[in-house]
Amino acid sequence: MSRDAIVLFAHGARDPEWAAPFGIIKEQLQAARSEVQVELAFQDFMTPTLDAAVARCAARGAERVVLVPLFMAQGGHLKQDLPLMVGKIRQQHPQLDLRVMPAIGDAPEILRAISDWVLRGAS
Amino acid sequence: MSRDAIVLFAHGARDPEWAAPFGIIKEQLQAARSEVQVELAFQDFMTPTLDAAVARCAARGAERVVLVPLFMAQGGHLKQDLPLMVGKIRQQHPQLDLRVMPAIGDAPEILRAISDWVLRGAS
Repeated sequence: MSRDAIVLFAHGARDPEWAAPFGIIKEQLQAARSEVQVELAFQDFMTPTLDAAVARCAARGAERVVLVPLFMAQGGHLKQDLPLMVGKIRQQHPQLDLRVMPAIGDAPEILRAISDWVLRGAS
Repeated sequence: MSRDAIVLFAHGARDPEWAAPFGIIKEQLQAARSEVQVELAFQDFMTPTLDAAVARCAARGAERVVLVPLFMAQGGHLKQDLPLMVGKIRQQHPQLDLRVMPAIGDAPEILRAISDWVLRGAS
């Protein structure tokens, strides 16, 4: 039972292939931090939902949860929908230390990695 | 007038902040390849559309266009909507050499960069 958990939160899609890269990120995190619970969650079309994933972490002993929105950029999903979901989760699990990371596109090192990848692919 | 162009294609959102990271990637690419035309395009909510961006490149002399879908993963947008758009663009610009890159989440080096960023942020 780990006290630390990471919940990767993606948009979801009807196409099951959508989940593949998020599954790879989950495996990489789990391989690097075997003592941390790592879960996937989705906003739409796919399960588990965010609150179900956090509940699962809490049920397995998590005290600290880092929520990672795997969205390209800030927009309605992260600025409006997600805070509502997080507020509800905080009410459901007041004992949890729940922290929300920014969007992928807020991380300069990821933007750089994307630019480098485009430059390699486009040349 | 450059014969090479890169068109970054993002989902778009009602929130103008959504476009910010894509603008940064555009600037990084333009800084690295000043001789290449670099354009942004959006599927929904924001402009220009993909066909308008490609038309602009063609009007400015592009002969080769690399289209980069800045989507996290493969799903309906990239597997169904985008091929239809690309088919229409090829009909409009039969002289263009138009190549489509995979999704962000298809690039192992970007998944690794995301995992590393999560590990730094979550620790």
